[in-house]
Amino acid sequence: MFQKILIANRGEIALRVLRACKELGIQTVVVHSTADADAMHVRLADESVCIGPPPSRDSYLNIHQIVAACEITGADAVHPGYGFLSENAKFADILAAHNITFIGPSGDHIRIMGDKIEAKRTAKRLGIPVVPGSDGAVTEEKEAKRIAAEIGYPVIIKASAGGGGRGMKVARTEEDLEVALQTARSEAGAAFGDDAVYIEKYLEKPRHIELQVFGDGAGRGVHFGERDCSLQRRHQKVWEEANSPALNAEERARIGGICASAVADLGYSGAGTIEFLYENGEFYFIEMNTRLQVEHPVTEAITGIDLVHEQIRVASGGGLSVRQEDIKFNGHAIECRINAEDPRTFTPSPGTITHFHTPGGLGIRVDSGVYSGYKIPPYYDSLIGKLIVHGRNRVECMMRLRRALDEFVVDGIKTTLPLFRDLVGNADIANGDYDIHWLEKYLAKGDEVANS
Amino acid sequence: MFQKILIANRGEIALRVLRACKELGIQTVVVHSTADADAMHVRLADESVCIGPPPSRDSYLNIHQIVAACEITGADAVHPGYGFLSENAKFADILAAHNITFIGPSGDHIRIMGDKIEAKRTAKRLGIPVVPGSDGAVTEEKEAKRIAAEIGYPVIIKASAGGGGRGMKVARTEEDLEVALQTARSEAGAAFGDDAVYIEKYLEKPRHIELQVFGDGAGRGVHFGERDCSLQRRHQKVWEEANSPALNAEERARIGGICASAVADLGYSGAGTIEFLYENGEFYFIEMNTRLQVEHPVTEAITGIDLVHEQIRVASGGGLSVRQEDIKFNGHAIECRINAEDPRTFTPSPGTITHFHTPGGLGIRVDSGVYSGYKIPPYYDSLIGKLIVHGRNRVECMMRLRRALDEFVVDGIKTTLPLFRDLVGNADIANGDYDIHWLEKYLAKGDEVANS
Repeated sequence: MFQKILIANRGEIALRVLRACKELGIQTVVVHSTADADAMHVRLADESVCIGPPPSRDSYLNIHQIVAACEITGADAVHPGYGFLSENAKFADILAAHNITFIGPSGDHIRIMGDKIEAKRTAKRLGIPVVPGSDGAVTEEKEAKRIAAEIGYPVIIKASAGGGGRGMKVARTEEDLEVALQTARSEAGAAFGDDAVYIEKYLEKPRHIELQVFGDGAGRGVHFGERDCSLQRRHQKVWEEANSPALNAEERARIGGICASAVADLGYSGAGTIEFLYENGEFYFIEMNTRLQVEHPVTEAITGIDLVHEQIRVASGGGLSVRQEDIKFNGHAIECRINAEDPRTFTPSPGTITHFHTPGGLGIRVDSGVYSGYKIPPYYDSLIGKLIVHGRNRVECMMRLRRALDEFVVDGIKTTLPLFRDLVGNADIANGDYDIHWLEKYLAKGDEVANS
Repeated sequence: MFQKILIANRGEIALRVLRACKELGIQTVVVHSTADADAMHVRLADESVCIGPPPSRDSYLNIHQIVAACEITGADAVHPGYGFLSENAKFADILAAHNITFIGPSGDHIRIMGDKIEAKRTAKRLGIPVVPGSDGAVTEEKEAKRIAAEIGYPVIIKASAGGGGRGMKVARTEEDLEVALQTARSEAGAAFGDDAVYIEKYLEKPRHIELQVFGDGAGRGVHFGERDCSLQRRHQKVWEEANSPALNAEERARIGGICASAVADLGYSGAGTIEFLYENGEFYFIEMNTRLQVEHPVTEAITGIDLVHEQIRVASGGGLSVRQEDIKFNGHAIECRINAEDPRTFTPSPGTITHFHTPGGLGIRVDSGVYSGYKIPPYYDSLIGKLIVHGRNRVECMMRLRRALDEFVVDGIKTTLPLFRDLVGNADIANGDYDIHWLEKYLAKGDEVANS
């Protein structure tokens, strides 16, 4: 087991990882920017190293500084959290070259999954169902038309190097296709410096369903069931559930088995998430995230298994603590991402939290790095906390969530809490009847957040 | 189901009950003393009624005022929490006479279990194993000697109306008995206005093990497993676990089955706790508490079942939500009672909490009615919060507890947190190897709370 882990992140996830290290009796080092000197994880860590000023490129993304911090403190492993360097293959390689363990998969696996075309090709080879579409980048309009005709309209054009919705265009007819192709390519070129695009079948009302997987790096793979993250705004997840209200145990076991076998075959090591669109009983691979997800706590709630413990165990060579048959799904869990944002406009709302009071009681978990008196710096993403609620079933979970939201107090800044207070009373949400477009449509109606 | 419940309590348990009501969609009224106007449960309730000044006899124990508050607000039920009027048969009777439901058993059942001799007689009749001893009060020294000789020394003499250790004396030989009997009777008379005492076999190193039971009032009874509350100081529980480190599944099922049948036979309604001393594989009935216990959350943690929901369901005539076969035990849970007390002397430490930061993350629950800036009034008991930790097994639970204790911040007053930080590192505690005398002996050594 590791003696000392350096946590190369900030906010709630830095605290989350710190907690896991403390539970395992591992010493902790945190790195932080000058703006984060008062952060909770800095206060609670055994050691802390300031690695530079904001913005992130001068601190949390500065590989050289982080490696130096490891060497100064004698850390033998790095946990990257999510975001920042968590899916940076070069970072994983450099750490390996310095004999420091990157708590995550190999640089090569990160690299494969970081390239959307290569990822899809790999998924297909591993038996993971993919969206029908072009086998790689499409440059010729003629070829695009042929492929689109083959898979059937509507189709979507996506940037190979993309993410966050940039470089994505839908074509519903052959007439649309030409313009869509050109627009997507120029957007992709501008956003990512790479205008390669590909074509896929466009699903009208899919859900976003993702499988939590783990590989032990020695040919064994397991899955921890799925999460439903269909409630998104501008491709950012807002509300996540485990299990999905849309899947039954048989579907879960089938797609879970496929994903577990895939990571086993790949020789993958650590936590991963295989994301799918799901429509009419079919799964279509989107991408694989080679790191811990923001929404991992809903999986922890229904399995009782600490996924960061598992990451650390696997990275240290200790293997997984569970076999597939040990992983049982118990009840239902929902996570709400509490952002420091105006609940109508979603404009960031940094500032000082004058009062922060989290709900308590049975089935309630709050993961947050903030506290009463904490000043939110304006340089980073606006997530200030995650409310995770667990119940014996989805109805109980929703009842408890409503109560917990009522009790959550964040004064001094605007937050997205009022949005969740509205959502929890909505009939579609109560019925689990929503797709990936639901939230955008709901927000467009503009009659939500009446209580904000 | 009830429309509106009045919560006749304060502190963390008032908030606990309030949460359950909100989850069930029931309106809430809280009553409070003038000293508790700023309490969290008062802030969160739908309605609140000030029922008088401290001390408790002028407010929380004032039956007339509480009934008036029900009538003014139209509450159709009262939840008494624990302590105060929760085991007051007269209160239950008066509410019944006013057509207000007392969320608890009948006044008659409270009365039976409130009289130690009657309780023991009833337990025996219901097949619950009792400590061998006198069948009722003993007044004659000669009779005392005969009984003691029959059950074997050491014996203990206890006040019939007693509690909290007053009026209890151990006699190890016949020579001791005379003095012990006289002292116990005079103490009992002074403390309770009733000098009736009884004699029981004295157990040298028992554990305190209690069974959580529920009756539906219609002849059905279930048990929710046991709690081990052996870690006590002056008969006050300090640390509680579920399940007990000392029992196996077979013993649990056996004693659980006996207790469930007993409440069924009694026609008991609502939550109850049957307390035992446990030594050498044998259970000896101590008493039955006819209310929710402070330590109920450890049972909730391992069963996933909200016991206050069940109380409300049963009282409203809706019956239990579970059958015995639905109640599964999942992992291990420990509760630490955080008191506003000096961790060495246990002197109460009221005052203003300048900073209150509770631990978070997987498996952590904090039930507390306090917050940053809250001023603890000097009139009530010193419990300011309960830290409840759940893990897949006892080892994981202890690892998590240690981490959570490290993270718990209460500034401005003294608390018992340093005691728990010591206990969690103790080898006997780690091994689950303790009896009801362990903590007193540990504290007497005086080398604990080095970190306080």
